Amino acid sequence: MTATGAGRAGGSDVPVVAVDANGADLGPGEVAAGAALAAERGARVLLFGPAEQLGLPPPGVEVVDAPVSIAKAEDPVAAARIAKDASIVLAAKAVAEGRADALVCAGGTGAALAAGTFNIKRDRGIYRPALALPLPVPGHPVTLLDVGASAEARREHLVQFAFMGAALARIVLGVPRPRVGLLSNGEEAARGGPLVVETGAELRARAAETEAFEFVGSVEGGDLVSGAADVVVTDGFTGNVTLKVLEGTSQTILRAIRDAALSSLRGRAGGLLLKGPLGALRAEIDPEAAGGAYLLGLRRLGVVPHGRFTREGFAQAILRARLGAAEDIVGQTHAALEAAGALRRSPASAADARLP
Amino acid sequence: MTATGAGRAGGSDVPVVAVDANGADLGPGEVAAGAALAAERGARVLLFGPAEQLGLPPPGVEVVDAPVSIAKAEDPVAAARIAKDASIVLAAKAVAEGRADALVCAGGTGAALAAGTFNIKRDRGIYRPALALPLPVPGHPVTLLDVGASAEARREHLVQFAFMGAALARIVLGVPRPRVGLLSNGEEAARGGPLVVETGAELRARAAETEAFEFVGSVEGGDLVSGAADVVVTDGFTGNVTLKVLEGTSQTILRAIRDAALSSLRGRAGGLLLKGPLGALRAEIDPEAAGGAYLLGLRRLGVVPHGRFTREGFAQAILRARLGAAEDIVGQTHAALEAAGALRRSPASAADARLP
Repeated sequence: MTATGAGRAGGSDVPVVAVDANGADLGPGEVAAGAALAAERGARVLLFGPAEQLGLPPPGVEVVDAPVSIAKAEDPVAAARIAKDASIVLAAKAVAEGRADALVCAGGTGAALAAGTFNIKRDRGIYRPALALPLPVPGHPVTLLDVGASAEARREHLVQFAFMGAALARIVLGVPRPRVGLLSNGEEAARGGPLVVETGAELRARAAETEAFEFVGSVEGGDLVSGAADVVVTDGFTGNVTLKVLEGTSQTILRAIRDAALSSLRGRAGGLLLKGPLGALRAEIDPEAAGGAYLLGLRRLGVVPHGRFTREGFAQAILRARLGAAEDIVGQTHAALEAAGALRRSPASAADARLP
Repeated sequence: MTATGAGRAGGSDVPVVAVDANGADLGPGEVAAGAALAAERGARVLLFGPAEQLGLPPPGVEVVDAPVSIAKAEDPVAAARIAKDASIVLAAKAVAEGRADALVCAGGTGAALAAGTFNIKRDRGIYRPALALPLPVPGHPVTLLDVGASAEARREHLVQFAFMGAALARIVLGVPRPRVGLLSNGEEAARGGPLVVETGAELRARAAETEAFEFVGSVEGGDLVSGAADVVVTDGFTGNVTLKVLEGTSQTILRAIRDAALSSLRGRAGGLLLKGPLGALRAEIDPEAAGGAYLLGLRRLGVVPHGRFTREGFAQAILRARLGAAEDIVGQTHAALEAAGALRRSPASAADARLP
């Protein structure tokens, strides 16, 4: 069912995850530590980065010396084309050539997107890749996509995003039949402008014909935290703004509360007593638990943990990528899109990815 | 300088504010109480609503019996056209006919927008009205517009929104030279798609020629809470989603913290000790303090407090509307747009308000 249809890399039953160790805030050594943690839990890792900073690899981890980093490149698209020896390019090529089954990039969403699209390439029938981020909302995790792979989207792109996001939620995040919502400025189907209205109508029709997801209609910004949907679909511009607002607001409120607690002796005592339950809340909204953003729509799964993650977050990213490869998220998405008649008909060309 | 150019309603120096009392969650009596509070602080109010629920008006408040409400109408646009005796329609007409200088509508943004646009009408040279909301971010209040007057916007609309929002921030909210940012999915001027890129270029050029505001360029979602701008401009779709995400996230985090505090005896004790500083934080982020959303771009100022406000919020809305009328926010916006050459050239027609 997958576009490439190949077996597991290395001929084993355990998928191999290609990991770019460059770009992490805590350095490549932290990513290597994450790879070691993941290997302890059964993962097989092909680790690309500066070998001298990666230490002795434990069983399950193979190091490929690749010191060149484009994680902080100003123009990652150009860098991914030019720097053929960059660690992310080599890692993406390993996936494209079948030496690994999924890609994890420790830093630089732009570089991962560019290197992944150029080398692994879009899956057959897919218009656009999308970045999907599981948001750690207390009590109601929700996956938002696209959070910024491309600023503009057409109806047929958003429809495919719904299938991709649903497959991610089902296979990698464990939601049996995901409820998909379409982000809008009101719950009424007539709100939101032509793109949202037409996409909503098509999703409603397709959801009636597919087992892949349930369509709950238009959802508002507040529904990202209300539990009204498991997957929320929007264009990359709105998705990116939404994500940044959500992150910024959480941090601002938590900081204001901390400052309030530090403002007096009584407050300090109160903050101390609340440390336990607040710690539990912080753990619940910890973005490391989900492993990062998922790069969907390519011939293989990609995962982009945040550069500020610790080893635990990188380990999660590798384990989720392994799970997504083992369960064939790409093939399952493709099959659901094909069954729904939502694949692109003419063969996708590389040039098309640049169209507005 | 104003489009209508008339003097104060009633021939006095104190502007008269027309207030629709219908639609508030706590009932018309709460709005009447807010009007009384505002009158105590010097406001003159023309209060439209069910007289039997409004009580005896104090000095400064005149009651007009108008029991018909369209605040909860499913289609407020149609309702504002048909229900000529609706309180919001009568209040808007009082402003249009010069019996009052500004409009305050206690409930139903849709009804206020429709009744205001039909009766008060757009100011000369303005393409679109916009809803501007001062967001009560701790330490850094920021005014966001458009939060939902129209889902789609063109470049010239967004440019006018910048001038409108800057005038609001300067005149009504007291920011001497507002820093205006354009909401985008990255700080680089090349990000965000053609609309954002072209709007950014025009705002940069116009800001160099005007004293009305400083343009700080593209800002990200997180900058709504970072203090990077005093005014953030975007289309009504993105603005509405952004607003709902911000509100939903704040409420969810504060609720999660309260639940965490209530989860144990230690937590309860901690919550009690933190009551003072957390109360101060809650007051700082209290949306009632700014009076609500501002309806800009009409021939007179409109203010739409949230339906859940108490009398204090309604009083604030009336006092801000009075201030905006006294300082001639409409005329000052018009003058700045005219000086910048950003007014629409052909006369605005009512039909144009419906164009995509």
